[in-house]
Amino acid sequence: MPDAVNIKDKFSQFTEHWQPKRIARLNDYDVRIAKLEGEFVWHAHEDTDEMFLVIKGDLKILLRDGEVNLSEGEIYVVPRGVEHRPVADKECHIMMIEPSDAVNTGTAGGDRTASVTDL
Amino acid sequence: MPDAVNIKDKFSQFTEHWQPKRIARLNDYDVRIAKLEGEFVWHAHEDTDEMFLVIKGDLKILLRDGEVNLSEGEIYVVPRGVEHRPVADKECHIMMIEPSDAVNTGTAGGDRTASVTDL
Repeated sequence: MPDAVNIKDKFSQFTEHWQPKRIARLNDYDVRIAKLEGEFVWHAHEDTDEMFLVIKGDLKILLRDGEVNLSEGEIYVVPRGVEHRPVADKECHIMMIEPSDAVNTGTAGGDRTASVTDL
Repeated sequence: MPDAVNIKDKFSQFTEHWQPKRIARLNDYDVRIAKLEGEFVWHAHEDTDEMFLVIKGDLKILLRDGEVNLSEGEIYVVPRGVEHRPVADKECHIMMIEPSDAVNTGTAGGDRTASVTDL
């Protein structure tokens, strides 16, 4: 019998920033968590929307034409093809849902690209 | 500029049980919330996994070979084809992610089948 996945327990198991961890799968989608602090790179995902849910702290998602501010318990879905840049002034914990083949830096690539590891 | 979706705000907007509300879309998936109390029907989804996240309260998911107990902040993904029966002894608030064409009663049908409405 598989157990429930406790999100806060999972966050207690790592400290690094901008390194997505897969905590569950749903069909061909991943449920990923990450700790964020600072600014990420501008990027877009050409083939998929990307869902963000803030578990702890505050997250700003910069868009080319504005920004979205997310607090704990808030969701935003970045539409496919839309350039965005996540920014966390202080450490923030997020859950993301996106296809298992989605890369964190999207079409931008570069040295912030991270493998998704199971947790 | 679309706003963030605040999950608790959305829960404040309805009272009925077992009536899924769509609060966001992610590709061809829905992000749905529902208030549960009591027992649901045994059912399965033949074509998809179904993700449950408890936002408030406790949820039991009965399976034919056991049960999964979920508290606030816990996730369980019911695999496709697996019969399950959600049970909430007291009112429980959940978020579900599943394909937009998924029906709440799956292949069981019957009078507990509910349309998904946007909220």
